[in-house]
Amino acid sequence: MNKETIIALLHGPDQPGLVSKVASWIFDKGSNIDHADQHKDTEANIFFQRVEWTPSGNPQDEADAFERFAQKELKMETKVALNSSKPNIALLVSKTDHCFHDIILRFKANELDGNIACIISNHKDLEKAAEVYQIPFYYIPVTGSNKEAAEKAQIEVLKKHSIRLVILARYMQILSSELLQQIQTPVINIHHSFLPAFAGGKPYHQAYERGVKIIGATAHYATADLDEGPIIYQDVTQINHRNTIADLISKGKDLEKLVFAQAVRLHLNNRILVYNNKTVVFD
Amino acid sequence: MNKETIIALLHGPDQPGLVSKVASWIFDKGSNIDHADQHKDTEANIFFQRVEWTPSGNPQDEADAFERFAQKELKMETKVALNSSKPNIALLVSKTDHCFHDIILRFKANELDGNIACIISNHKDLEKAAEVYQIPFYYIPVTGSNKEAAEKAQIEVLKKHSIRLVILARYMQILSSELLQQIQTPVINIHHSFLPAFAGGKPYHQAYERGVKIIGATAHYATADLDEGPIIYQDVTQINHRNTIADLISKGKDLEKLVFAQAVRLHLNNRILVYNNKTVVFD
Amino acid sequence: MNKETIIALLHGPDQPGLVSKVASWIFDKGSNIDHADQHKDTEANIFFQRVEWTPSGNPQDEADAFERFAQKELKMETKVALNSSKPNIALLVSKTDHCFHDIILRFKANELDGNIACIISNHKDLEKAAEVYQIPFYYIPVTGSNKEAAEKAQIEVLKKHSIRLVILARYMQILSSELLQQIQTPVINIHHSFLPAFAGGKPYHQAYERGVKIIGATAHYATADLDEGPIIYQDVTQINHRNTIADLISKGKDLEKLVFAQAVRLHLNNRILVYNNKTVVFD
Amino acid sequence: MNKETIIALLHGPDQPGLVSKVASWIFDKGSNIDHADQHKDTEANIFFQRVEWTPSGNPQDEADAFERFAQKELKMETKVALNSSKPNIALLVSKTDHCFHDIILRFKANELDGNIACIISNHKDLEKAAEVYQIPFYYIPVTGSNKEAAEKAQIEVLKKHSIRLVILARYMQILSSELLQQIQTPVINIHHSFLPAFAGGKPYHQAYERGVKIIGATAHYATADLDEGPIIYQDVTQINHRNTIADLISKGKDLEKLVFAQAVRLHLNNRILVYNNKTVVFD
Repeated sequence: MNKETIIALLHGPDQPGLVSKVASWIFDKGSNIDHADQHKDTEANIFFQRVEWTPSGNPQDEADAFERFAQKELKMETKVALNSSKPNIALLVSKTDHCFHDIILRFKANELDGNIACIISNHKDLEKAAEVYQIPFYYIPVTGSNKEAAEKAQIEVLKKHSIRLVILARYMQILSSELLQQIQTPVINIHHSFLPAFAGGKPYHQAYERGVKIIGATAHYATADLDEGPIIYQDVTQINHRNTIADLISKGKDLEKLVFAQAVRLHLNNRILVYNNKTVVFD
Repeated sequence: MNKETIIALLHGPDQPGLVSKVASWIFDKGSNIDHADQHKDTEANIFFQRVEWTPSGNPQDEADAFERFAQKELKMETKVALNSSKPNIALLVSKTDHCFHDIILRFKANELDGNIACIISNHKDLEKAAEVYQIPFYYIPVTGSNKEAAEKAQIEVLKKHSIRLVILARYMQILSSELLQQIQTPVINIHHSFLPAFAGGKPYHQAYERGVKIIGATAHYATADLDEGPIIYQDVTQINHRNTIADLISKGKDLEKLVFAQAVRLHLNNRILVYNNKTVVFD
Repeated sequence: MNKETIIALLHGPDQPGLVSKVASWIFDKGSNIDHADQHKDTEANIFFQRVEWTPSGNPQDEADAFERFAQKELKMETKVALNSSKPNIALLVSKTDHCFHDIILRFKANELDGNIACIISNHKDLEKAAEVYQIPFYYIPVTGSNKEAAEKAQIEVLKKHSIRLVILARYMQILSSELLQQIQTPVINIHHSFLPAFAGGKPYHQAYERGVKIIGATAHYATADLDEGPIIYQDVTQINHRNTIADLISKGKDLEKLVFAQAVRLHLNNRILVYNNKTVVFD
Repeated sequence: MNKETIIALLHGPDQPGLVSKVASWIFDKGSNIDHADQHKDTEANIFFQRVEWTPSGNPQDEADAFERFAQKELKMETKVALNSSKPNIALLVSKTDHCFHDIILRFKANELDGNIACIISNHKDLEKAAEVYQIPFYYIPVTGSNKEAAEKAQIEVLKKHSIRLVILARYMQILSSELLQQIQTPVINIHHSFLPAFAGGKPYHQAYERGVKIIGATAHYATADLDEGPIIYQDVTQINHRNTIADLISKGKDLEKLVFAQAVRLHLNNRILVYNNKTVVFD
């Protein structure tokens, strides 16, 4: 279970022999491939690969060497990580707490590989809960007038904790494109509808109004365009005419928790490549 | 299995004692309730009921008597049917034939209670298949210029066959609101997306473009507003980045067949009430 | 949302006019039926009903009056409850804690209507967590030799807290038939397989060995026959050849949490009737 | 869509450099890998690979050359096929016809790549339907006393049509281990339960009796042990207390059709490897 591996995510224009070149590099190092998965978007002519192997030498050195090889020889965009790395994560939340508790408990149970380094909220409601979980809590209220200052404060916290991933556990504020650009960190959001249906506010009310028979939840990377970012994972559940809006909200909670956790897991396991506002998910 | 029952669908403003009055009427007739299901839309204050019972006397007479009672005494909108009735159905289809074969085979296998009395198509492709199934086939081409004449021809066929239900098994023409009003017959359509996402044409192309992880199908009653009618049933299936548009179309076929058949079944079993552009489905 | 209602669950041999008599009794009291659902097992000739209504007078008095009516006049087995009642619940758990945290958080978030009055465990591992949740924790170790004494201690705790429902959140000890008989309280267990497949110990290992493509979880009422009690709810998820036993255990956790919570919810909402080792679930 | 590819399925004891050697062989031929998927069973230390590539030269020659390479140099069990090959298939069926119609229509619609060369049945019921589909129909009745002779007749038909795959579309006779050994052809069976639950006869009756809340269907390779062969694909659907045995049979039909078709598709696309009575399915 715990043996150290290197994971590489590659993508770029397709060229003959890519699989062979990657496999040979690893074989020549005396290392052994554990998993390899590739995909071609034949329309866009882009090649994607996720390869995981057990290094023969020092893991970090071998990872660095591979990154140089992939970028110089293969001219591929490359991300290389050790499976042992536990990136620092910032959890942003408002008042709704089901995703908050669920995701923290999954990290505590080691279902997810990472370190929730801080919690940022625009409300004080979950301060005590954060204390019980022994995670630093930052109360940064956001109003129409202080948005800019608030985001500056958020950025400082993210920097202070060397955050590598931001997760929005039902955080009811939009992150500005300025913030997204400055932090240069992936941001995973959970939206409580089956996107692109019912984007924007109050999706369960919209679903009730339209009379759909299925509701959903969508985890996606946040971009400057609200609810338009690359979709990572979605799931749905059936509803019927007996269900009130309150029922939809209640049923949706379980969906949101599962979809959010699954998206975070896929990201932390280095299984996601993004291109053309879509994701390739090697699962 | 084959005993004769009466099914009544009622709806209207809620009033005290409705359940009691209906149950007492049936009990007083010496008849026996087999199933009863009710629903209140507490926001709209509308009461809905589906009740099915074994009559003590002549079924048609008792059904008629109940209808008079429900309309006069209860002031409810009422639809009463015998479970033994097999309404005549018109199947409209273009070239795509998976829903066409699937639904006809279900009728032939007595999975669905009704009689496909005729097939109308704007193409000749399925004429021979209709012949093998021994169902009258009407070829009525529809072009930009002959739309009105074509619909007149369609209406004549529907009248000739005393059609009580129209089903669109991937019929790629929009029925005008004039036709819908004239025929005064429910029309069930299968749309190849999870509405309201990807309404309109080429939904699988839209889904591919957006990079969703789930595709769906929606059966709904056709109204003058394209893809906006009351939703009867929906289902979905997971897809991934490997799936091409051709794959989505192929996977979607199974969804479309199941969702379409289920909606037709629910309608023919008198399980659907429509109000406010939504459905109450007593299943 | 919070209006007080009475819920009655009835079952017994079918007889003409049952629906009518129940509805008339409620109507005559000046009360109003909110929901009513019935079922006939035509093979066994048993009638089942769940009826929920808003009382016109004192809820408890009307509930008591209905119970007398149903037992004397209708000769039906009857259970009557107020929707406002919050029964005391005992949670039994061993070391595995995902169902433990999940179910407690659902009660804290008022998703479930009841009161976890005490936790009983044969291990000390979750004592601190219970303290954080401020729920009394009883450590009652169970060994081969002290089983009888341990169960005596358990029964005392259950009595002390006036327990009306026992829930086994992955409690890894079998409750003896003597204990089940003495406590006369329903016991809900979550089994980590799709029963009747893989009953007994280590179901995920069994599933891996057999090479199934789907795993499941089953919530059931515990009886003297291990894993043979009436099934309340089941759900499943897909697996594939890549999944190790550890993966199955991990994926299964989410299933177990959802299935367990759903079964407890159905029970607390008085939606379940048991007969012939099966359940009728009015959902 | 229609370009010719070679597909190789390999498995055998794991050894360093397998991925690299396979990829290099293909690269050296000037050919290009389209898909490659591998799996290690780390417990059993077995390596599995499915690799699909576009050949640079004559497809059949390159396929043969690869087979020699894989067997001699890699010492792997190897199956190599062209994606253009359409193996002859025998469909065995009794009276129940939903899987029969469904699978034939899928072949006719080119959803599945193969050629149903003959139908063998122990009843005459589907003879006319076979005629409409223009597929040779062999009526071979099977009784307790003529089993041996009947199987001899079956084997002759299979040989005459050069059958490469046998599919049992609800064929209600057990194939003897003698027949299975003689024909040396994979046999896919659809069983109408979620195996290993409810093996043997009348699984829907068993499911009803036990009171499960979910029913399923299982496609597996037939072996001498009834319902014990390697599972290819499974799916399930929810049921409730209202469903009679007839309802389970009816709902099950849709499951059986989908699961059967999916298993046949996976087999024909050369996506399945069998070992230890399990399957590796590269999908």
